[in-house]
Amino acid sequence: MKTEPQRRARHGHLVIIGGHEDRQHRKEILTRFVELAGGVQSSIVVITAASRVADQMWSIYEQAFADLGVTRHAHLVLENRQDANDEEKVRMVAEADGIFMTGGDQKRLLAIVGGTALDAAMHAALKVRGACIAGTSAGASAMSGHMLAQGRTDLLPEKGAVSLAAGLGFVHRVVIDQHFSERQRLARLLSVVAQNPYLLGIGIDEDTALVIERGRGIEVLGEGSVTVIDGRTMDTNMADIAERATPELIDVRLHLLPAGSRYYLPEDGEPAKPMSPSLRDFLENVTKRNPLS
Amino acid sequence: MKTEPQRRARHGHLVIIGGHEDRQHRKEILTRFVELAGGVQSSIVVITAASRVADQMWSIYEQAFADLGVTRHAHLVLENRQDANDEEKVRMVAEADGIFMTGGDQKRLLAIVGGTALDAAMHAALKVRGACIAGTSAGASAMSGHMLAQGRTDLLPEKGAVSLAAGLGFVHRVVIDQHFSERQRLARLLSVVAQNPYLLGIGIDEDTALVIERGRGIEVLGEGSVTVIDGRTMDTNMADIAERATPELIDVRLHLLPAGSRYYLPEDGEPAKPMSPSLRDFLENVTKRNPLS
Repeated sequence: MKTEPQRRARHGHLVIIGGHEDRQHRKEILTRFVELAGGVQSSIVVITAASRVADQMWSIYEQAFADLGVTRHAHLVLENRQDANDEEKVRMVAEADGIFMTGGDQKRLLAIVGGTALDAAMHAALKVRGACIAGTSAGASAMSGHMLAQGRTDLLPEKGAVSLAAGLGFVHRVVIDQHFSERQRLARLLSVVAQNPYLLGIGIDEDTALVIERGRGIEVLGEGSVTVIDGRTMDTNMADIAERATPELIDVRLHLLPAGSRYYLPEDGEPAKPMSPSLRDFLENVTKRNPLS
Repeated sequence: MKTEPQRRARHGHLVIIGGHEDRQHRKEILTRFVELAGGVQSSIVVITAASRVADQMWSIYEQAFADLGVTRHAHLVLENRQDANDEEKVRMVAEADGIFMTGGDQKRLLAIVGGTALDAAMHAALKVRGACIAGTSAGASAMSGHMLAQGRTDLLPEKGAVSLAAGLGFVHRVVIDQHFSERQRLARLLSVVAQNPYLLGIGIDEDTALVIERGRGIEVLGEGSVTVIDGRTMDTNMADIAERATPELIDVRLHLLPAGSRYYLPEDGEPAKPMSPSLRDFLENVTKRNPLS
């Protein structure tokens, strides 16, 4: 656990979890979230707004965080946009060390939280106070500026298979999908990238987290892998084909980053380590302190 | 259907089918196979050696080829290596216009046919007489020099998940997997490429064929797509990780070639069209008239 001086030096972390993180046994990912929030004395709020069974969600995480020794954790009940502009609730977020967004439906989460005072307070907590923001499943997808709103999971990519919406924007120029290997979502992520080559596709497996330290680097935790799809230099006939047709995709780049992988930007004065330009772009983009909105 | 003078100009084709090609309705792939063999008057032999239910296999294709109007089609019964060195059977292959290898187990096919006079006669039929050689499922995997012998289909690539064996060698520097999207075999093909970066991975969907015209080009037929995995320029920690661990893979190139895709080498004097270097390498390699053995 971090000591008080270290807490002040926090850079702000995102913990983007592919769903089904272990909440009962080793709890590797939740443990790291608590550490990054500053340890068991931290103030942690749980946002269940993505879920229609918010109380059930809270009871799961209430127990899990209690098991980890956290005492100052609270359920932020958000049933509508009024709640997300409520002064007391906004203050809880503004003062939190860790903010955890559960699964459910990312569209529901955005409909309640997007553009509210609570949304702004989350950004301020991350950027000004270096808080740690975690999201799992729908809470993970909601973290990017362009959010995967819905998509068919077919065997092959298809034109029109996915639609995007506006997410919370903690990270930009990416789209995040979760339950990635388990639900065989590569074709769906390729559909996103084929239609939106500007965005890098990030697929996160269950019980796996992509941890982003602002301005510093990333690491992969847990049981699975993170898949990155870079279509920026691909060729595709996407513009010319019919709806539901499968596009030709030439020169898509794929990175598979298994748990245990760590990639850090060079510190001041440190020479840059050799790194694939595509992976370096990804790293620089997701760790950006002030991403474009 | 081709006329006689066209038949003499045949270049030799491979029709590599991902399994479950339509045998009862439109029969697009089988129709093309018959055309490439020279039409309904051609002599077609069906090799069922991969299967333990050879007679059932033959009855399916006997009916399908009869439905297409083929009259000179025959079942080549190969129960052991003696059969594959039998003078009469070897002559049938040597004189065939089209040779079709059914599904089953590619290891069984190779155990019976590999290195026999019949194997040599198939190569001669392709290269000297421009015959068409087709294989579906196990018959498709068997076509390359390095053949996927067996492999676990897990959610993620794993060190040691696959083993290769010697195939028939009609095409080299590739590994062919079939039932690709349907059986979600990307992780398995990434395992092959991670361990064997010299080989290009080819994943062929069901009812889909990669047609290779020697010296000329390729096309994709049927209902699905062909996925090409190029790991030649990737970075990986495969050499350093434990058995069954998931490798880091950086900068894998992926091409998705849907049915209807055609890529041809420039004819003499024709300017080369712009093409991704990775795809061009793939095209030049698989169409090579005299591949390394």
